[in-house]
Parts: sequence; structure tokens; C-alpha cells
Amino acid sequence: MKTEFINPFLTSLMNVSSTMSTIQLTPKKPMLKKEIYAKGDISGFIGLTAPNLKGSLSVTFEKNLVLMTMEKMVGEVHQNINADVIDMVGEITSMVAGGAKRLLSEQGFDFDMATPIVVSGENHTIRHQSKDKVVLIPLNSDYGCVFLEISLE
Amino acid sequence: MKTEFINPFLTSLMNVSSTMSTIQLTPKKPMLKKEIYAKGDISGFIGLTAPNLKGSLSVTFEKNLVLMTMEKMVGEVHQNINADVIDMVGEITSMVAGGAKRLLSEQGFDFDMATPIVVSGENHTIRHQSKDKVVLIPLNSDYGCVFLEISLE
Repeated sequence: MKTEFINPFLTSLMNVSSTMSTIQLTPKKPMLKKEIYAKGDISGFIGLTAPNLKGSLSVTFEKNLVLMTMEKMVGEVHQNINADVIDMVGEITSMVAGGAKRLLSEQGFDFDMATPIVVSGENHTIRHQSKDKVVLIPLNSDYGCVFLEISLE
Repeated sequence: MKTEFINPFLTSLMNVSSTMSTIQLTPKKPMLKKEIYAKGDISGFIGLTAPNLKGSLSVTFEKNLVLMTMEKMVGEVHQNINADVIDMVGEITSMVAGGAKRLLSEQGFDFDMATPIVVSGENHTIRHQSKDKVVLIPLNSDYGCVFLEISLE
């Protein structure tokens, strides 16, 4: 999988977080190992299709970071992951994919997005079922981590 | 969402289970309520796109049923959900979507599939972020339940 496909998703996630919640995310080194899973408390997923390509994107938050994002983005303090927090993660996932779609479109590459799905549950793990390798990028913030995973084949 | 789009997915799931694992699934009444979540221990997801439509499919297993499916489909006894079980659920999800794709194609309706994602974690909940209603169909078996959710908009 080429860097030119990964960077738009990473840029888009950092933009969405800084614009919508003023939380700055600092990316750590991308990992390519297949056996590494993102582990978190709430994840948004979206399927991606294009004529010669298919893939999937996931954005996985630690609980503390997602609750702080809710507070800063929506102005609501929640103690736990509930329906409102779940819907916000669905929106963030759509915004991240939509932002990457725009950036890739400028490079002449167009893809379609499925509808997002949000999974919540403490310490769930994610595995993208792709023939190609999955790229996992952890991002740090002052409030916890978020994990971006992209699989394209 | 029309029944003609739901039935191919339901038929495909029942076919995959009976053919691959000899486990017969009995569908219960489909539910349309937005606030009902499927709850289970392992889920396979796949995004669906078509020119005028997008959606997502999830297949969520209770632990006992997925371990019994592993035993009957692959001939391996596992005590817990591990990487092998996760990969099997990814394959089942692809087979269910692929079977539905063939059935819908016969009706003149074609869609593209993203790559599957599998989430594991006890008692996780799922929420499809669709503007339309989500259809949830629980299916019973001798070994536990599986929940099929489809969202199309």
C-alpha cells in the first residue's frame, strides 16, 4: 500500500480533531505488522470501494480521549460511552473518510464510501481482513490515544 | 428499506451456516427499531456501495455459537475467540455478502463490497450510522444466537 493513499487519511483525522475539538493529535510511527491489533473502547468503521480497489478504515478511541472530544466538540460532559458519544464517533469517521476522499480526488483518485458502523465495548480488538497488509498509525494527545487503521487491496 | 434487499442477505447467512458448518439457523422476527443494538462477542462487518446506494452489513455471533461453528466448519476445537476464529468470521462475512451479491445480481441489482473487518470483545454493541432504519434479524440455533444487521440508504 502506498504512502500517497495513507497520508490523506492521517491528515484528515488530524484536521478533524484539531478543527472540531481543538485537540491536537501527534502521529507515531506507522506499523505494518499484520498481527498488531488496535485496541480501544470505541471504534468507527467505514468501507471503501473503487473500481480497482476495496478497503476499510477504522478509527479507535480510548475512552478518556473520546469523552474529552465530546466535551470539546459538542460541549457536553459525559461520564461514559453512550448513544450520543457513539453518534459523534460515527460522524467523526464519516468526516475523516470524507476529508481523505477530497484530498485523494485532487490527485485524480476517487472512491465510494459505505455507511459507518460504530462498535463500543471495553478493550475490543479489530482485525481487517485484507489480503494486503494493514497500516496502523497510533496518535497521541494530551487526553489519550487514537488508532487509525487502513486496509486497501 | 425493501424486503427484496433484506431476504438475499438472510438467505445467504442461512445457506453459509448450513453448508459450511451444518448448523441450521432459524430466523426470528426482523426488528426495525433504531435503538436496538446487536450485542455479541464477535462481529464481522462489511461495507456495501452501489451507484445510488450505500450501506453496511454486520454478522454478530455469541461466543458459544462461533466456537461450535469453528469446530464443525474447520474441525478444530477452540476454547476462546482467537486469531483463527477471527479469520473464520471474516470469511463467513465475505461469504454472506458474496452470496447476497449473487442473489441480488440475478434481480438486476449490483453492489460493490469493501473488505471485511472483524471486532472481538465480550458484549460489544454495534450501531449502524445510517439515515434510514437498520434491520436487525436475530437467528437461533442449537448452540446460541447470531444477529444479522443490515443498513442501506
